[in-house]
Amino acid sequence: MSDQLRLWVVLIEPRTPGNIGTAARAIKNFGLSGLVLVDPPTAATAGEARAFAGQAREDVLPAAETASLDAVVDRFHTIGTTATLPVRGDDHVRTPATTPTALCDSLASTVGDVAVVFGRERDGLTNAELALMDEVCTIPADPTYPVLNLGQAVTVMAYALRPLLADAPHARGPPTPLADPAATQQLYTYLQQLVELVEPKEHKRAKTGRMLRRIFGRAHLTAGEVATLTGVIRRSIAAVRD
Amino acid sequence: MSDQLRLWVVLIEPRTPGNIGTAARAIKNFGLSGLVLVDPPTAATAGEARAFAGQAREDVLPAAETASLDAVVDRFHTIGTTATLPVRGDDHVRTPATTPTALCDSLASTVGDVAVVFGRERDGLTNAELALMDEVCTIPADPTYPVLNLGQAVTVMAYALRPLLADAPHARGPPTPLADPAATQQLYTYLQQLVELVEPKEHKRAKTGRMLRRIFGRAHLTAGEVATLTGVIRRSIAAVRD
Repeated sequence: MSDQLRLWVVLIEPRTPGNIGTAARAIKNFGLSGLVLVDPPTAATAGEARAFAGQAREDVLPAAETASLDAVVDRFHTIGTTATLPVRGDDHVRTPATTPTALCDSLASTVGDVAVVFGRERDGLTNAELALMDEVCTIPADPTYPVLNLGQAVTVMAYALRPLLADAPHARGPPTPLADPAATQQLYTYLQQLVELVEPKEHKRAKTGRMLRRIFGRAHLTAGEVATLTGVIRRSIAAVRD
Repeated sequence: MSDQLRLWVVLIEPRTPGNIGTAARAIKNFGLSGLVLVDPPTAATAGEARAFAGQAREDVLPAAETASLDAVVDRFHTIGTTATLPVRGDDHVRTPATTPTALCDSLASTVGDVAVVFGRERDGLTNAELALMDEVCTIPADPTYPVLNLGQAVTVMAYALRPLLADAPHARGPPTPLADPAATQQLYTYLQQLVELVEPKEHKRAKTGRMLRRIFGRAHLTAGEVATLTGVIRRSIAAVRD
Protein backbone atom coordinates (compact mmCIF):
# COMPACT_ATOMS: atom_id res chain seq x y z
CA MET A 1 0.00 0.00 0.00
CA SER A 2 1.23 3.43 -0.82
CA ASP A 3 0.77 6.88 0.64
CA GLN A 4 1.17 8.86 -2.55
CA LEU A 5 -0.05 9.07 -6.11
CA ARG A 6 2.29 7.87 -8.85
CA LEU A 7 1.80 8.70 -12.52
CA TRP A 8 2.85 6.42 -15.37
CA VAL A 9 2.71 6.86 -19.13
CA VAL A 10 1.51 3.97 -21.29
CA LEU A 11 2.02 4.08 -25.06
CA ILE A 12 0.05 1.58 -27.14
CA GLU A 13 1.74 0.54 -30.38
CA PRO A 14 3.90 3.64 -30.76
CA ARG A 15 5.63 3.55 -34.14
CA THR A 16 8.00 6.55 -33.97
CA PRO A 17 10.99 6.09 -31.65
CA GLY A 18 11.35 9.88 -31.45
CA ASN A 19 7.96 10.03 -29.73
CA ILE A 20 9.04 7.35 -27.26
CA GLY A 21 12.11 9.42 -26.44
CA THR A 22 10.04 12.60 -26.10
CA ALA A 23 7.67 10.78 -23.74
CA ALA A 24 10.61 9.61 -21.63
CA ARG A 25 11.95 13.16 -21.42
CA ALA A 26 8.56 14.54 -20.36
CA ILE A 27 8.32 11.83 -17.67
CA LYS A 28 11.67 12.93 -16.26
CA ASN A 29 11.02 16.67 -16.68
CA PHE A 30 7.81 16.47 -14.68
CA GLY A 31 8.76 13.80 -12.14
CA LEU A 32 6.45 10.97 -13.23
CA SER A 33 7.25 7.36 -12.28
CA GLY A 34 7.87 5.57 -15.55
CA LEU A 35 7.03 4.42 -19.06
CA VAL A 36 5.17 1.28 -20.15
CA LEU A 37 5.06 0.21 -23.80
CA VAL A 38 2.37 -2.05 -25.30
CA ASP A 39 3.49 -3.71 -28.56
CA PRO A 40 6.42 -1.35 -29.16
CA PRO A 41 8.49 -1.41 -32.35
CA THR A 42 11.85 -3.17 -32.32
CA ALA A 43 14.67 -1.12 -30.82
CA ALA A 44 11.99 1.12 -29.28
CA THR A 45 14.38 2.65 -26.77
CA ALA A 46 17.49 2.94 -28.94
CA GLY A 47 18.70 5.30 -31.66
CA GLU A 48 16.27 8.14 -32.28
CA ALA A 49 14.46 7.47 -29.02
CA ARG A 50 17.70 8.16 -27.15
CA ALA A 51 18.32 11.30 -29.17
CA PHE A 52 14.94 12.74 -28.16
CA ALA A 53 15.07 11.61 -24.52
CA GLY A 54 17.70 14.09 -23.30
CA GLN A 55 18.93 13.03 -19.87
CA ALA A 56 16.05 10.55 -19.62
CA ARG A 57 18.18 8.31 -21.84
CA GLU A 58 20.04 7.42 -18.64
CA ASP A 59 17.08 6.20 -16.58
CA VAL A 60 13.47 6.50 -17.77
CA LEU A 61 14.11 5.22 -21.29
CA PRO A 62 16.19 2.10 -20.47
CA ALA A 63 13.81 1.31 -17.57
CA ALA A 64 10.75 1.33 -19.86
CA GLU A 65 8.66 -1.81 -19.34
CA THR A 66 6.79 -3.81 -21.97
CA ALA A 67 3.36 -5.12 -20.99
CA SER A 68 0.04 -6.21 -22.45
CA LEU A 69 -2.95 -3.90 -22.27
CA ASP A 70 -4.70 -6.42 -20.02
CA ALA A 71 -1.79 -6.24 -17.58
CA VAL A 72 -1.94 -2.44 -17.66
CA VAL A 73 -5.67 -2.45 -16.89
CA ASP A 74 -5.09 -4.86 -13.97
CA ARG A 75 -2.26 -2.81 -12.49
CA PHE A 76 -3.27 0.83 -12.90
CA HIS A 77 -6.19 3.18 -12.61
CA THR A 78 -6.30 4.02 -16.31
CA ILE A 79 -6.97 7.35 -18.00
CA GLY A 80 -7.33 6.99 -21.76
CA THR A 81 -6.56 10.10 -23.81
CA THR A 82 -8.37 11.02 -26.99
CA ALA A 83 -8.50 14.07 -29.20
CA THR A 84 -11.70 12.89 -30.80
CA LEU A 85 -14.81 14.72 -29.76
CA PRO A 86 -17.82 12.62 -28.83
CA VAL A 87 -20.02 11.77 -31.78
CA ARG A 88 -23.63 10.65 -31.94
CA GLY A 89 -24.03 7.01 -31.11
CA ASP A 90 -20.73 7.01 -29.22
CA ASP A 91 -22.32 4.72 -26.63
CA HIS A 92 -20.19 5.82 -23.69
CA VAL A 93 -16.90 4.89 -25.29
CA ARG A 94 -15.57 8.45 -25.27
CA THR A 95 -18.09 10.12 -23.00
CA PRO A 96 -18.06 11.74 -20.61
CA ALA A 97 -14.56 13.02 -21.35
CA THR A 98 -12.79 14.82 -18.58
CA THR A 99 -9.94 17.37 -18.85
CA PRO A 100 -6.50 17.51 -17.22
CA THR A 101 -7.66 20.37 -15.01
CA ALA A 102 -10.71 18.43 -13.84
CA LEU A 103 -8.53 15.36 -13.18
CA CYS A 104 -6.28 17.44 -10.94
CA ASP A 105 -9.34 18.28 -8.87
CA SER A 106 -10.97 14.86 -8.85
CA LEU A 107 -7.72 12.95 -8.10
CA ALA A 108 -6.40 15.53 -5.62
CA SER A 109 -6.61 13.25 -2.60
CA THR A 110 -6.10 9.95 -4.42
CA VAL A 111 -3.07 7.73 -3.82
CA GLY A 112 -1.98 4.74 -5.88
CA ASP A 113 -0.74 4.03 -9.41
CA VAL A 114 -2.43 5.97 -12.19
CA ALA A 115 -1.57 5.42 -15.87
CA VAL A 116 -2.21 7.93 -18.64
CA VAL A 117 -2.72 5.82 -21.76
CA PHE A 118 -1.99 7.04 -25.30
CA GLY A 119 -2.85 5.37 -28.59
CA ARG A 120 -1.16 5.12 -31.95
CA GLU A 121 0.32 8.15 -33.72
CA ARG A 122 -2.15 7.93 -36.58
CA ASP A 123 -5.31 6.49 -35.07
CA GLY A 124 -5.17 6.95 -31.28
CA LEU A 125 -6.95 4.42 -29.08
CA THR A 126 -9.52 2.07 -30.60
CA ASN A 127 -13.05 2.04 -29.23
CA ALA A 128 -12.36 -1.39 -27.71
CA GLU A 129 -9.32 0.00 -25.89
CA LEU A 130 -11.15 3.11 -24.73
CA ALA A 131 -13.92 0.91 -23.36
CA LEU A 132 -11.36 -0.68 -21.01
CA MET A 133 -10.26 2.64 -19.52
CA ASP A 134 -11.50 3.82 -16.13
CA GLU A 135 -11.72 7.42 -17.36
CA VAL A 136 -11.29 9.20 -20.67
CA CYS A 137 -9.55 12.57 -20.93
CA THR A 138 -9.42 15.09 -23.76
CA ILE A 139 -6.82 17.85 -23.93
CA PRO A 140 -8.68 21.12 -24.59
CA ALA A 141 -7.51 22.28 -28.01
CA ASP A 142 -8.61 24.28 -31.01
CA PRO A 143 -11.57 22.52 -32.65
CA THR A 144 -10.16 23.15 -36.13
CA TYR A 145 -7.09 20.99 -35.36
CA PRO A 146 -7.33 19.27 -31.97
CA VAL A 147 -5.02 16.35 -32.85
CA LEU A 148 -1.72 16.70 -31.01
CA ASN A 149 1.45 14.90 -31.96
CA LEU A 150 1.93 11.91 -29.61
CA GLY A 151 5.05 13.32 -27.93
CA GLN A 152 3.36 16.69 -27.44
CA ALA A 153 0.24 15.06 -25.98
CA VAL A 154 2.35 13.14 -23.44
CA THR A 155 4.20 16.34 -22.55
CA VAL A 156 1.00 18.30 -21.99
CA MET A 157 -0.54 15.57 -19.82
CA ALA A 158 2.67 15.22 -17.77
CA TYR A 159 2.78 18.98 -17.21
CA ALA A 160 -0.91 19.26 -16.46
CA LEU A 161 -1.05 16.37 -13.96
CA ARG A 162 2.20 17.20 -12.16
CA PRO A 163 0.36 19.11 -9.40
CA LEU A 164 -0.96 15.71 -8.26
CA LEU A 165 2.50 14.41 -7.37
CA ALA A 166 3.45 14.40 -3.72
CA ASP A 167 6.61 16.41 -4.26
CA ALA A 168 4.75 19.15 -6.08
CA PRO A 169 3.65 22.03 -3.88
CA HIS A 170 -0.11 21.94 -3.49
CA ALA A 171 -2.80 21.61 -0.90
CA ARG A 172 -4.79 18.44 -0.62
CA GLY A 173 -7.07 16.62 1.75
CA PRO A 174 -6.43 13.32 3.55
CA PRO A 175 -5.22 10.62 1.13
CA THR A 176 -7.71 8.18 -0.39
CA PRO A 177 -6.01 5.00 -1.64
CA LEU A 178 -7.37 3.57 -4.89
CA ALA A 179 -8.64 0.01 -4.87
CA ASP A 180 -6.52 -2.79 -6.32
CA PRO A 181 -7.19 -2.44 -10.08
CA ALA A 182 -7.52 -6.21 -10.45
CA ALA A 183 -10.31 -6.23 -7.85
CA THR A 184 -11.98 -3.37 -9.70
CA GLN A 185 -11.79 -5.36 -12.93
CA GLN A 186 -13.43 -8.29 -11.13
CA LEU A 187 -16.21 -5.97 -9.97
CA TYR A 188 -16.74 -4.83 -13.57
CA THR A 189 -17.02 -8.48 -14.63
CA TYR A 190 -19.76 -9.09 -12.04
CA LEU A 191 -21.55 -5.88 -13.04
CA GLN A 192 -21.57 -7.05 -16.64
CA GLN A 193 -22.96 -10.43 -15.54
CA LEU A 194 -25.80 -8.69 -13.70
CA VAL A 195 -26.54 -6.51 -16.71
CA GLU A 196 -26.66 -9.62 -18.94
CA LEU A 197 -29.15 -11.18 -16.54
CA VAL A 198 -31.54 -8.26 -16.16
CA GLU A 199 -31.28 -6.26 -19.41
CA PRO A 200 -33.74 -7.79 -21.87
CA LYS A 201 -32.43 -5.86 -24.88
CA GLU A 202 -29.27 -7.63 -25.93
CA HIS A 203 -27.95 -4.68 -27.95
CA LYS A 204 -27.98 -2.49 -24.85
CA ARG A 205 -25.90 -4.76 -22.63
CA ALA A 206 -22.40 -3.81 -23.74
CA LYS A 207 -23.27 -0.13 -23.80
CA THR A 208 -24.71 -0.27 -20.28
CA GLY A 209 -21.62 -2.11 -19.05
CA ARG A 210 -19.38 0.60 -20.47
CA MET A 211 -21.50 3.28 -18.83
CA LEU A 212 -21.20 1.57 -15.44
CA ARG A 213 -17.42 1.29 -15.85
CA ARG A 214 -17.20 4.99 -16.62
CA ILE A 215 -19.33 5.95 -13.63
CA PHE A 216 -17.32 3.85 -11.19
CA GLY A 217 -14.08 4.82 -12.92
CA ARG A 218 -14.55 8.49 -12.25
CA ALA A 219 -15.73 7.80 -8.70
CA HIS A 220 -12.17 6.53 -7.88
CA LEU A 221 -13.37 3.60 -5.78
CA THR A 222 -11.52 2.62 -2.61
CA ALA A 223 -10.77 -1.00 -1.67
CA GLY A 224 -13.61 -1.02 0.85
CA GLU A 225 -16.05 0.33 -1.70
CA VAL A 226 -15.03 -2.25 -4.29
CA ALA A 227 -15.46 -5.01 -1.70
CA THR A 228 -18.90 -3.80 -0.64
CA LEU A 229 -20.08 -3.19 -4.21
CA THR A 230 -18.79 -6.61 -5.27
CA GLY A 231 -20.73 -8.17 -2.42
CA VAL A 232 -23.95 -6.41 -3.37
CA ILE A 233 -23.61 -7.30 -7.03
CA ARG A 234 -22.64 -10.94 -6.40
CA ARG A 235 -25.59 -11.39 -4.05
CA SER A 236 -27.88 -9.75 -6.59
CA ILE A 237 -26.66 -12.13 -9.28
CA ALA A 238 -27.20 -15.11 -6.98
CA ALA A 239 -30.66 -13.89 -6.02
CA VAL A 240 -31.65 -13.28 -9.64
CA ARG A 241 -30.52 -16.79 -10.57
CA ASP A 242 -32.44 -18.44 -7.72
CA MET B 1 -6.61 48.55 -30.85
CA SER B 2 -8.09 45.17 -30.23
CA ASP B 3 -10.78 43.74 -27.99
CA GLN B 4 -9.12 40.40 -27.38
CA LEU B 5 -5.81 38.89 -26.38
CA ARG B 6 -3.68 37.26 -29.07
CA LEU B 7 -0.78 34.94 -28.31
CA TRP B 8 2.34 34.59 -30.46
CA VAL B 9 5.38 32.36 -30.20
CA VAL B 10 8.85 33.84 -30.78
CA LEU B 11 11.86 31.54 -31.21
CA ILE B 12 15.31 33.13 -30.92
CA GLU B 13 18.04 31.43 -32.96
CA PRO B 14 16.38 28.03 -33.13
CA ARG B 15 18.77 25.50 -34.69
CA THR B 16 16.60 22.38 -35.09
CA PRO B 17 13.96 22.62 -37.83
CA GLY B 18 12.00 19.83 -36.11
CA ASN B 19 11.47 22.14 -33.14
CA ILE B 20 10.24 24.91 -35.43
CA GLY B 21 7.71 22.49 -36.92
CA THR B 22 6.64 21.28 -33.47
CA ALA B 23 6.13 24.91 -32.37
CA ALA B 24 3.99 25.56 -35.45
CA ARG B 25 1.85 22.52 -34.70
CA ALA B 26 1.36 23.60 -31.06
CA ILE B 27 0.34 27.08 -32.25
CA LYS B 28 -2.33 25.55 -34.48
CA ASN B 29 -3.43 22.92 -31.93
CA PHE B 30 -4.09 25.54 -29.28
CA GLY B 31 -5.37 28.37 -31.46
CA LEU B 32 -2.53 30.86 -31.04
CA SER B 33 -1.99 33.61 -33.62
CA GLY B 34 1.40 32.91 -35.17
CA LEU B 35 5.12 32.24 -35.16
CA VAL B 36 7.99 34.75 -35.28
CA LEU B 37 11.59 33.66 -35.83
CA VAL B 38 14.66 35.68 -34.79
CA ASP B 39 17.83 34.70 -36.68
CA PRO B 40 16.46 31.38 -37.91
CA PRO B 41 18.57 28.80 -39.76
CA THR B 42 18.33 28.60 -43.54
CA ALA B 43 15.31 26.68 -44.80
CA ALA B 44 13.82 27.03 -41.31
CA THR B 45 10.30 26.20 -42.46
CA ALA B 46 11.13 23.46 -44.98
CA GLY B 47 12.02 19.78 -44.78
CA GLU B 48 12.01 18.47 -41.23
CA ALA B 49 10.07 21.50 -39.98
CA ARG B 50 7.24 20.56 -42.33
CA ALA B 51 7.37 16.94 -41.22
CA PHE B 52 6.87 17.93 -37.57
CA ALA B 53 4.25 20.61 -38.23
CA GLY B 54 1.34 18.31 -39.11
CA GLN B 55 -1.48 20.34 -40.64
CA ALA B 56 0.28 23.55 -39.52
CA ARG B 57 2.51 23.04 -42.59
CA GLU B 58 -0.37 24.55 -44.56
CA ASP B 59 -0.70 27.83 -42.66
CA VAL B 60 1.23 28.59 -39.46
CA LEU B 61 4.59 27.38 -40.76
CA PRO B 62 4.65 29.13 -44.16
CA ALA B 63 3.23 32.28 -42.53
CA ALA B 64 6.05 32.43 -39.98
CA GLU B 65 7.61 35.90 -39.87
CA THR B 66 11.27 36.77 -39.42
CA ALA B 67 12.03 39.74 -37.20
CA SER B 68 14.73 41.22 -35.00
CA LEU B 69 14.45 40.95 -31.24
CA ASP B 70 14.15 44.75 -31.05
CA ALA B 71 11.16 44.60 -33.39
CA VAL B 72 9.61 41.86 -31.25
CA VAL B 73 10.03 43.92 -28.11
CA ASP B 74 8.47 46.93 -29.83
CA ARG B 75 5.45 45.02 -31.08
CA PHE B 76 4.51 42.62 -28.28
CA HIS B 77 4.09 42.37 -24.57
CA THR B 78 6.92 39.85 -24.10
CA ILE B 79 7.09 36.88 -21.77
CA GLY B 80 10.55 35.30 -21.71
CA THR B 81 10.69 31.66 -20.72
CA THR B 82 13.54 30.10 -18.79
CA ALA B 83 14.14 26.80 -17.05
CA THR B 84 17.05 28.27 -15.13
CA LEU B 85 16.47 28.92 -11.47
CA PRO B 86 17.49 32.33 -10.10
CA VAL B 87 21.10 32.51 -8.96
CA ARG B 88 22.86 34.90 -6.59
CA GLY B 89 23.62 38.23 -8.17
CA ASP B 90 20.88 37.63 -10.72
CA ASP B 91 19.87 41.30 -10.38
CA HIS B 92 16.25 40.80 -11.39
CA VAL B 93 17.12 39.26 -14.75
CA ARG B 94 15.26 36.05 -14.00
CA THR B 95 13.35 37.19 -10.94
CA PRO B 96 10.61 37.33 -10.11
CA ALA B 97 9.72 34.43 -12.38
CA THR B 98 6.04 33.80 -12.85
CA THR B 99 4.31 30.56 -13.86
CA PRO B 100 1.83 29.79 -16.65
CA THR B 101 -0.96 29.44 -14.09
CA ALA B 102 -0.16 32.84 -12.56
CA LEU B 103 -0.02 34.37 -16.05
CA CYS B 104 -3.51 33.09 -16.77
CA ASP B 105 -4.70 34.99 -13.72
CA SER B 106 -2.70 38.17 -14.22
CA LEU B 107 -3.48 38.44 -17.96
CA ALA B 108 -7.12 37.38 -17.62
CA SER B 109 -8.54 40.80 -18.50
CA THR B 110 -5.72 41.85 -20.83
CA VAL B 111 -6.27 42.45 -24.53
CA GLY B 112 -3.59 42.94 -27.18
CA ASP B 113 -0.63 41.04 -28.62
CA VAL B 114 1.40 38.92 -26.22
CA ALA B 115 4.52 37.00 -27.30
CA VAL B 116 5.97 34.03 -25.48
CA VAL B 117 9.70 34.13 -26.23
CA PHE B 118 11.94 31.05 -26.24
CA GLY B 119 15.74 30.90 -26.45
CA ARG B 120 18.20 28.54 -28.08
CA GLU B 121 17.96 24.77 -27.72
CA ARG B 122 21.21 24.55 -25.81
CA ASP B 123 21.48 27.80 -23.88
CA GLY B 124 18.04 29.39 -23.67
CA LEU B 125 17.79 33.17 -23.49
CA THR B 126 20.85 35.24 -22.58
CA ASN B 127 20.74 37.57 -19.60
CA ALA B 128 20.73 40.52 -22.02
CA GLU B 129 17.70 39.11 -23.84
CA LEU B 130 15.89 38.28 -20.60
CA ALA B 131 16.48 41.85 -19.45
CA LEU B 132 14.44 43.06 -22.44
CA MET B 133 11.40 40.94 -21.56
CA ASP B 134 8.34 42.40 -19.86
CA GLU B 135 7.91 39.28 -17.74
CA VAL B 136 9.84 36.08 -17.17
CA CYS B 137 8.07 32.74 -16.83
CA THR B 138 9.32 29.36 -15.63
CA ILE B 139 7.47 26.12 -16.33
CA PRO B 140 7.13 24.22 -13.03
CA ALA B 141 9.17 21.04 -13.47
CA ASP B 142 11.15 18.46 -11.53
CA PRO B 143 14.21 20.18 -9.99
CA THR B 144 16.45 17.26 -10.95
CA TYR B 145 15.85 17.88 -14.67
CA PRO B 146 13.81 21.03 -15.32
CA VAL B 147 15.17 21.65 -18.85
CA LEU B 148 12.47 20.94 -21.42
CA ASN B 149 13.13 20.33 -25.08
CA LEU B 150 12.31 23.52 -27.03
CA GLY B 151 9.34 22.01 -28.89
CA GLN B 152 7.95 20.58 -25.65
CA ALA B 153 8.35 23.92 -23.86
CA VAL B 154 6.43 25.72 -26.61
CA THR B 155 3.71 23.06 -26.47
CA VAL B 156 3.32 23.36 -22.69
CA MET B 157 3.14 27.17 -22.81
CA ALA B 158 0.62 27.10 -25.67
CA TYR B 159 -1.56 24.62 -23.75
CA ALA B 160 -1.21 26.46 -20.45
CA LEU B 161 -2.02 29.93 -21.82
CA ARG B 162 -4.87 28.83 -24.08
CA PRO B 163 -7.51 29.69 -21.44
CA LEU B 164 -6.59 33.35 -22.08
CA LEU B 165 -7.88 33.18 -25.64
CA ALA B 166 -11.36 34.55 -26.12
CA ASP B 167 -12.35 31.76 -28.47
CA ALA B 168 -11.43 28.97 -26.06
CA PRO B 169 -14.83 27.76 -24.92
CA HIS B 170 -13.43 24.28 -24.23
CA ALA B 171 -10.91 25.49 -21.67
CA ARG B 172 -13.06 24.07 -18.92
CA GLY B 173 -14.28 21.15 -20.98
CA PRO B 174 -17.73 20.78 -22.47
CA PRO B 175 -20.47 21.58 -19.97
CA THR B 176 -21.97 18.47 -18.45
CA PRO B 177 -25.44 19.08 -17.02
CA LEU B 178 -26.14 17.19 -13.82
CA ALA B 179 -29.15 14.89 -13.66
CA ASP B 180 -32.40 16.09 -12.12
CA PRO B 181 -31.77 15.68 -8.38
CA ALA B 182 -35.25 14.19 -7.91
CA ALA B 183 -34.44 11.43 -10.40
CA THR B 184 -31.16 10.81 -8.61
CA GLN B 185 -32.98 10.54 -5.28
CA GLN B 186 -35.35 8.02 -6.85
CA LEU B 187 -32.34 6.01 -8.02
CA TYR B 188 -30.97 6.02 -4.47
CA THR B 189 -34.31 4.71 -3.21
CA TYR B 190 -34.17 1.80 -5.65
CA LEU B 191 -30.55 1.12 -4.73
CA GLN B 192 -31.53 0.94 -1.08
CA GLN B 193 -34.35 -1.49 -1.92
CA LEU B 194 -31.91 -3.75 -3.74
CA VAL B 195 -29.50 -3.65 -0.81
CA GLU B 196 -32.33 -4.59 1.58
CA LEU B 197 -33.15 -7.55 -0.63
CA VAL B 198 -29.65 -8.96 -1.04
CA GLU B 199 -27.71 -7.94 2.10
CA PRO B 200 -28.30 -10.60 4.76
CA LYS B 201 -26.76 -8.58 7.60
CA GLU B 202 -29.38 -6.07 8.64
CA HIS B 203 -26.92 -3.77 10.41
CA LYS B 204 -24.93 -3.34 7.22
CA ARG B 205 -27.80 -2.21 5.01
CA ALA B 206 -27.95 1.47 5.89
CA LYS B 207 -24.17 1.82 5.77
CA THR B 208 -24.00 0.17 2.35
CA GLY B 209 -26.75 2.45 1.06
CA ARG B 210 -24.80 5.50 2.23
CA MET B 211 -21.68 4.22 0.56
CA LEU B 212 -23.49 3.77 -2.75
CA ARG B 213 -24.92 7.27 -2.52
CA ARG B 214 -21.46 8.73 -1.92
CA ILE B 215 -19.98 6.81 -4.84
CA PHE B 216 -22.66 7.96 -7.26
CA GLY B 217 -22.66 11.41 -5.73
CA ARG B 218 -19.04 12.07 -6.53
CA ALA B 219 -19.46 10.60 -10.03
CA HIS B 220 -21.75 13.58 -10.86
CA LEU B 221 -24.26 11.46 -12.80
CA THR B 222 -25.89 12.77 -15.96
CA ALA B 223 -29.59 12.37 -16.72
CA GLY B 224 -28.88 9.52 -19.14
CA GLU B 225 -26.75 7.70 -16.61
CA VAL B 226 -29.40 8.01 -13.92
CA ALA B 227 -32.01 6.65 -16.33
CA THR B 228 -29.87 3.67 -17.33
CA LEU B 229 -28.79 2.90 -13.76
CA THR B 230 -32.38 3.14 -12.56
CA GLY B 231 -33.42 0.67 -15.24
CA VAL B 232 -30.72 -1.83 -14.27
CA ILE B 233 -31.52 -1.58 -10.57
CA ARG B 234 -35.31 -1.80 -11.03
CA ARG B 235 -34.95 -4.86 -13.23
CA SER B 236 -32.57 -6.42 -10.71
CA ILE B 237 -35.11 -5.85 -7.93
CA ALA B 238 -37.87 -7.38 -10.04
CA ALA B 239 -35.69 -10.37 -10.93
CA VAL B 240 -34.68 -10.94 -7.31
CA ARG B 241 -38.33 -10.86 -6.21
CA ASP B 242 -39.46 -13.32 -8.88
